[in-house]
Amino acid sequence: MGTYKATISVRYAETDKMGVAHHASYLLWFELARTGLLRESGHPYRDMESAHVLLPVIEYNCRLVQGAAYDDTVSIETSVRELRSRVVSFGYRAFRGTTLLAEGWTRHVCVDGDNHPRRLPADVAEALRPYRIDVLT
Amino acid sequence: MGTYKATISVRYAETDKMGVAHHASYLLWFELARTGLLRESGHPYRDMESAHVLLPVIEYNCRLVQGAAYDDTVSIETSVRELRSRVVSFGYRAFRGTTLLAEGWTRHVCVDGDNHPRRLPADVAEALRPYRIDVLT
Amino acid sequence: MGTYKATISVRYAETDKMGVAHHASYLLWFELARTGLLRESGHPYRDMESAHVLLPVIEYNCRLVQGAAYDDTVSIETSVRELRSRVVSFGYRAFRGTTLLAEGWTRHVCVDGDNHPRRLPADVAEALRPYRIDVLT
Amino acid sequence: MGTYKATISVRYAETDKMGVAHHASYLLWFELARTGLLRESGHPYRDMESAHVLLPVIEYNCRLVQGAAYDDTVSIETSVRELRSRVVSFGYRAFRGTTLLAEGWTRHVCVDGDNHPRRLPADVAEALRPYRIDVLT
Repeated sequence: MGTYKATISVRYAETDKMGVAHHASYLLWFELARTGLLRESGHPYRDMESAHVLLPVIEYNCRLVQGAAYDDTVSIETSVRELRSRVVSFGYRAFRGTTLLAEGWTRHVCVDGDNHPRRLPADVAEALRPYRIDVLT
Repeated sequence: MGTYKATISVRYAETDKMGVAHHASYLLWFELARTGLLRESGHPYRDMESAHVLLPVIEYNCRLVQGAAYDDTVSIETSVRELRSRVVSFGYRAFRGTTLLAEGWTRHVCVDGDNHPRRLPADVAEALRPYRIDVLT
Repeated sequence: MGTYKATISVRYAETDKMGVAHHASYLLWFELARTGLLRESGHPYRDMESAHVLLPVIEYNCRLVQGAAYDDTVSIETSVRELRSRVVSFGYRAFRGTTLLAEGWTRHVCVDGDNHPRRLPADVAEALRPYRIDVLT
Repeated sequence: MGTYKATISVRYAETDKMGVAHHASYLLWFELARTGLLRESGHPYRDMESAHVLLPVIEYNCRLVQGAAYDDTVSIETSVRELRSRVVSFGYRAFRGTTLLAEGWTRHVCVDGDNHPRRLPADVAEALRPYRIDVLT
């Protein structure tokens, strides 16, 4: 296992006057992929939110390698990079076919409905473990 | 009086590969202008929301005349087109200098915190009246 | 035939503080659906653009009926409402299951690479005809 | 001197269902601030683009500290962090009043109209030097 793969088509609105997807678009695709990974793990984020387990982003990073054109099919390979009691990071690699377009990560803190830090529930941590990939930074 | 004028600079991210602002950008500028008009009227929308007076959009329309380029300064003239007990419409005209770029309108229903229709509070209606412009459609 | 159906998942970024998809999101979904319809018709828009046949939006309209929540699956039924020598309109209805969320239309003028009006190529018009639905406005 | 300061109002559309600005919004504000810094430096980016001096983003990073609410006034302090022959980085700090909301950076490569790396023109480098701030990472 290790990774979850989401696939998107680049929207016209996501391009900018340079003719390729704006660099911020990757964050939205990463988020879509993260949503898919959590759903596949058995813990859809909308259910986590209802249970007051929120994962707001506290840091993100993205390195852009190649542009993505309008209507390109882009796949986002997503994995878990860091899994601590209160902090989770996801890693992403965006491909068009076998061409790497971008790679990045997002780091999240686990908070409750009042925005106070809380532990990631044990069952969520357990369900995320199979997506864990060790990364040397 | 009659109109409120907001001014924005076209963001790079708002352009698309056609080289001008994407057509959906106007809705975001209209929203910014509406926010400004409500603030000027003495009823900032964030305060209205805290008081459970919400104005979700139920319909919108926009006609595009000329493209807006990156870094163009665009002014949005905003007025009230319709002012009924539960429904309000705002009208917008976007200009670069004296060149009309687009015109549109948004129609809103007044609801409470549970999303049930409610009357627009009398003081809000009163404050919006000076922005009213009669429009023949 | 008559309609083309696109399906999207509501992105977290597309929601706003009201908790449902921002009203401008529908325009982006309509665009995605239009892209799909054109591709299915045998005339992908990216190929049309390469052949200097552009269809910029000159007017749009959207009526919102029900909110779309984060991670909702929304289908967009798309058809051709107007098919003239230089102007094309598409109509859209967004559903969650059988619940109508919104309906709208976009009107486009056909231009060449220099932004001058031109006739819609005969083969494109022919390919769009099966998606035509007569609408009484 | 050292920094350029841009000011924005948080748009309703920029919030998400968590009630604060979506984390990707900061990238758009950073871009707006970068546009302002370049204009102030005497080299508006739209002119640079016309002269085939482009600065596409090759990497970005953002650390989020506090949420920004709808209609908050946010100021973005922008400086130059790295100024090499072909690579420039900008640093950003977003504040509401004196409260730090986020900080980040974007790294750009200088390319010509065919997307080939080129040297940053000497007059642009010269104009950016006063915005340079040494950063220990």
